[in-house]
Order: sequence, then C-alpha cells, then structure tokens
Amino acid sequence: MATRTQVAIVGAGPAGMFLAHLLHAAGIDAVVIERRDRDYVEGRVRAGVLEQVTVDLMHRLGIADRLVREGLVHGGTRLSLDGDLFRIDMAALTGGATVTVYGQQEVMRDLFDAADARGLSIRWNVDDVALHDLDSARPSVSWREDGMERRLDCDIVVGCDGYHGISRAAIPATVLRTFERVYPFGWLGILADVPPVEHELIYANHERGFALASMRSATRSRYYVQCGLDEKIVDWSDERFWDELCLRLGPDVGGRVTRGPSFEKTIAPLRSFVAEPMRWGRLFLAGDAAHIVPPTGAKGMNLAVSDVTMLGEALVEYFDERSTAGIDGYSARALARVWKAERFSWWFTSITHRFPDMDGFSRRLQMAELDYIRGSEAAQRTLAENYVGLPLTPA
Amino acid sequence: MATRTQVAIVGAGPAGMFLAHLLHAAGIDAVVIERRDRDYVEGRVRAGVLEQVTVDLMHRLGIADRLVREGLVHGGTRLSLDGDLFRIDMAALTGGATVTVYGQQEVMRDLFDAADARGLSIRWNVDDVALHDLDSARPSVSWREDGMERRLDCDIVVGCDGYHGISRAAIPATVLRTFERVYPFGWLGILADVPPVEHELIYANHERGFALASMRSATRSRYYVQCGLDEKIVDWSDERFWDELCLRLGPDVGGRVTRGPSFEKTIAPLRSFVAEPMRWGRLFLAGDAAHIVPPTGAKGMNLAVSDVTMLGEALVEYFDERSTAGIDGYSARALARVWKAERFSWWFTSITHRFPDMDGFSRRLQMAELDYIRGSEAAQRTLAENYVGLPLTPA
Repeated sequence: MATRTQVAIVGAGPAGMFLAHLLHAAGIDAVVIERRDRDYVEGRVRAGVLEQVTVDLMHRLGIADRLVREGLVHGGTRLSLDGDLFRIDMAALTGGATVTVYGQQEVMRDLFDAADARGLSIRWNVDDVALHDLDSARPSVSWREDGMERRLDCDIVVGCDGYHGISRAAIPATVLRTFERVYPFGWLGILADVPPVEHELIYANHERGFALASMRSATRSRYYVQCGLDEKIVDWSDERFWDELCLRLGPDVGGRVTRGPSFEKTIAPLRSFVAEPMRWGRLFLAGDAAHIVPPTGAKGMNLAVSDVTMLGEALVEYFDERSTAGIDGYSARALARVWKAERFSWWFTSITHRFPDMDGFSRRLQMAELDYIRGSEAAQRTLAENYVGLPLTPA
Repeated sequence: MATRTQVAIVGAGPAGMFLAHLLHAAGIDAVVIERRDRDYVEGRVRAGVLEQVTVDLMHRLGIADRLVREGLVHGGTRLSLDGDLFRIDMAALTGGATVTVYGQQEVMRDLFDAADARGLSIRWNVDDVALHDLDSARPSVSWREDGMERRLDCDIVVGCDGYHGISRAAIPATVLRTFERVYPFGWLGILADVPPVEHELIYANHERGFALASMRSATRSRYYVQCGLDEKIVDWSDERFWDELCLRLGPDVGGRVTRGPSFEKTIAPLRSFVAEPMRWGRLFLAGDAAHIVPPTGAKGMNLAVSDVTMLGEALVEYFDERSTAGIDGYSARALARVWKAERFSWWFTSITHRFPDMDGFSRRLQMAELDYIRGSEAAQRTLAENYVGLPLTPA
C-alpha cells in the first residue's frame, strides 16, 4: 500500500518530533515513522538541560505551558576543583541568557501530546524501515506495519533515527566522512527522589574523577560520577555511589547531599562523533543520526533542535518558495554550529575529567585552566555563551 | 678569596639582569655570576615580543629610551587558517594593552649598558660555579675566575641560569617535582633583512603545518615554519624555506612576501616544562631555570620578567622590612602565573600546529576553535588578554 507526503521523517525522538511540529505549523505535509512505541520513546532517560534556542522553539510551537510551570530556569552554573567551588553567572555574562532544567522525557511528552491534539501523523511500531531512491527526485520509505508492507512516496526524507539508525548508513561510503573520539571512561548516573544539593548544577573536577550534581526538579536529583568503562552496575550499591559522589564534591558540598534510594542507575560511555555531509540527495540528517557529543555541557538534544530549526527554515523555503538555496546550504550551516558544540563538549570534558593516561603536566594544565576561568571574566564569558548555546548559524 | 653580598644572582640572562637592576634600584647589594662573556649572552637570538609588564618594567628601571624609539608597538595580531586571515584587535579587547616587538638582543644590550653605567657587579667568564649551604642561613656561591678560586657569601641565591643551569639541580630530588611536555616538531626560523610582509604578526595554521610571520624591525623579518625534529638545516635552502613559508601563509599573504638571503637559520625544539617549587631554603629560581614554554605566543622572556618582578618585591620586603612573608609566598605566587602562561602557550601551540598523529577529528576541532574565535568577542578577548600578558598575581 503506497501513500504520499511531502516529508518523511524517520524517527520520533526530539529531532523528528520538533521537525514534525515545525512543518505542521508551516502547512507542510509530513509523516513520522518510528520503530518503537510511544511509551518506549517517552521513557528514555536522556538529556535534562535546555538551551535558550530549545526553550524558544517550544514557545514558538505553543508547547511550552508545562515547561513554563515546571522547568527550572538557571542563570548560573558551578565549577568545582577538588571541592573548591566557584560560580559562572551565565545570565550576567551573556546579557540575560539562561538554561532550563526540564527532562527530555517531559519534552517528549509535550511533543507527543501536542502531536495527538494537532493530528500529526506518526506511524508507531514499524519494522524493516528502508529508504529508496534518495538520489532521485522521487524518494520513498518502506516498512512493515501490522504484517503489511507499506510505502511512502515523498519529496524529502529526514533521518532523525539516531546514531544506530538506518539513515546515515544509506549515504554511500564514498561520500560520507566520519570523525570520532571515544573517551576512556563512562558516566555512572542515578536518579533519586531527593532534593538536589544545590539549586544549580555543579561540574566537579576531582583527583578521583569527574562528578556532576544535577537535578530534574526540586525533589528529584540526577547525579553522576565518572567511572571506568569496565565497571559493572552491580558493583555500585547506592551507598558506594553516594560515598564516591560526596568525596568528589568535597567535604563542604558533599556534606550537604541528601541521600536516598536510586530508582535508575546506568553506565553510559562518552563519545564524540560527526558525519559529514548532513545531506545526500533528498536525504537530510538531523540530531544524533549525524553527530554525538559527550554529555558534559548537555548539548545533545539542543543540537538536534538547532539542526531541525535550520532544516525547517530550509524546507519551508523549498516548498513555499521553490528555492533550493536553503536545503543546499543546510549541511554546511548545520555543521558550522555542530562543530562548535563538539569543540565545547570535548573541551568541557577535557578540563573536568580524569584521564587514565594523564601525566602531571596535563593535570596541572586542568588546574591552571580552572584557575584561569575563575579569575577571568572573558574566560567565564566563553564558557557561558557556549553553555547557554551559541546563536544559530546565519543562513 | 671570599667576598660578601646580599643577593648572589647566577646567570646574566634576562631574569638575572632585570633582577640585578631591580635590586640596585632598591639599594640592595647584588652580584651577578655568568659563565659566558657579554658578547655571547647579548648575541643569543631569542624572543622578540614584549608584554606590557616587561615594557613597564623597562620604563620603571629607566632603560626604555631605545625601546621607545625603536620598538614596534602592536595593537593587534593575525590568525590564519589555510590562508584565510582574521585579526585580533588586542588593544580594543583589553582596554588598550599592547605588545612591543623588540628583540631580546636589544633588551640585553640595554640591560648591560645600564649595568655598566650604574656600576652593577657582574662576574663574567667564570668556571665551576657551585652553590653551597642553600638550606642554611649562610649560603654561598663559589667559582673559578682567571684561575683563582672565589667564594661569595650571601643571604639569598637566585638561580637565573636557564634550563641547563646548575641552580635547579641543587634542589634535592625528594623536594623537586617536574612537569614536562615535549612536542613532536620543531620551529625552523630565519632572520633576513627584508621588510616584513605585514606590520603585525601572523600565526598561520595550514594543512602542511604552522608558520609564523614576525619581525624585528621595519626592515628585518623573522619567519618560522614548523618542521620535523629529524630535519636538517642543510636540507633547507633559502629558496625552499621561502616557498614553504609562502605556501603556508596562503596565496594572498604568501604572494606579498619579500624574499631575501637569510643570515640566521636554526631549528629549535618545542618544550613545556615546569619545576616546583621555585624556592628551596635560600635558593630562588626565576625564568628558564624553573620553566620553559613553547615559543608560540612569546611568553618565555616575559615570564622571566614577571618572576623577577615578584621576587624583587619579596626581596625588598625581606631586606627592608625584615619580613619573610614575600619570599615565603614567592613560589606559589610565581607558579600561579607561570601555569597560566604554560596553559596559554600549550593551547596556542595546540590550535595552530599540525601534529603527526592528528586524526580528522582533531583537525576539525582546530578548525572549529579558530572559527569560534573568529566569531566570538569573548573568545578573542581570552586570546588577547593572555597574549598581552595576564596581570601579576596579587601578593
């Protein structure tokens, strides 16, 4: 059975759903194809800090009501070196920009609720998704749904299906260049229904490794400690986790941590990855399908949002004005911002983590960098402007 | 034959001679001991860019007449990525701070001429210098001079005898910690009496490696290209050097380079090195005896000057006010600034050079960093404030 649409979106994660709403608002016909069901996608515990660009887009799409009520606006963030804390006043340093703590799970719920209310077309639980004729003017997407073969003819395919998805793999190896950095450690993270130790985030560099004190709400904490890639969750009792976290936060902050049972505990590897170009024929990539950042600095979901914001503009131009300038420029435009976020995420990881092969010189460089940031308004401003999110690349 | 002084200074390079003048101005008795003769020390081709802190000190010491006449004041510097140039307006970004191009050879000549005029005591051409009883209240320095054994009793010994000197080696291994980074490339540098291609410096990152367009005066150019550590000067004819330089500066700038015969051509390795602490008993280290930076950003001589500026204050406090607070705090105070300069020199080297083991991700990070600097005033300001020199650490 074949149907037709203007834009086929592969994947109902943040990239796919933000784009679906953007296209819907512009009157462009789109269908989202998703391998999993809504509960699965909405249940994934991921990012939790939204840049201004993401908050702005939620307002523009009219899905910010709950965000306004429940999101925690942060005008600053803290850095800690061996327990010694200082604050980066992001709002003052950037002319008022902030970040908002609001979990990706909440964002997805808002996106799906609004999608239902607005009648956006999402095909859930589909199998064997395949992309066809991407280098022609008549691409299509096929899949199996309830045992039936389906085909969707379209003008444009957007791959929003993440790092492990099929979209990037559809670009010929002769065209695609990939860039990667794997870090020699992971993040062990927990969620617990205890009040966060601080109302802002604390990024802690400690002799024993990195720690992050974060939160999802005023009563739900999100904490991480850097761990070895060979470590197992079963070896990390809640008690061991809290002890290690408090040690790395230092006696002052660590002594104020409220402990409690964790209800989520996972180890995630850290990776930097970029695929170039982000467009091949009628296929466009957005979000994790094209790039991965380590979580330090919380750029992952925000990059997906900036990608689709720029791609949305380009597609409106294409369908409404019959101009290919926007879609032809999309890859370079998106990549310019992606690489700056990659640089920031790599740098922020580099100055806060303990590397296994780190010599004394590297450790002293980290300490000098944090000492320099502490004393230099200019250095604080570079951190702040990246943390709240660089502006979208001009078209 | 034994004599007595308050401060014995080992080494008549920039650190030793600036300190000798500072102590002389404060009425503190000092003797400088130097293994070589004046011509040798003055003839060494070294640094060429003075920070504000160095210029200020020359004014304070009354040795800035020729500097004012002949020094080239630079309010900006240029960065180049694969031939694409942009400017960092240092003066505008730092509230008016500048750097001054004035060769170390000229600085030494001014220091020595004034030392002669003021009757500073310098022992030239001495052999077998040895330090004694540094951990007692009565240290001394011994040497051979014209075949005679000499001994100088003193209160304080200052080691200004560079990386290969005897002073740092006098600190017990159980006390001394060293931190080092050796870079997998060198700088091939030439001097030529041709007008510089640009009136400001150009730091060029190119696919083929780093290049630096610098100068000593309006008619004397100082150019460098990054080269392998195994390369030999005999393989670098002037023609090959000019061709490679112009290639790395890109067609626009490279096409404007005035070529001419070089009268100096050397290959220098790049190294980061710090020794901690910078004080042991009655011995104090300053300049290259305690730390080395790669030449990118021209921090070497300027760090020697900031060391002895802070040490001079501490010694005045010690002799005039009988307070040990200054000398007790010297090492930590000097190292705080040293490490920030080490960080900057390492960073500036990292973003401008081609590393042999560099993968595509690292190369893209360099490009993203330069692109970010180009577009961010805050990032430009961090570069500028480090380049003109961070303020002295508060006592």
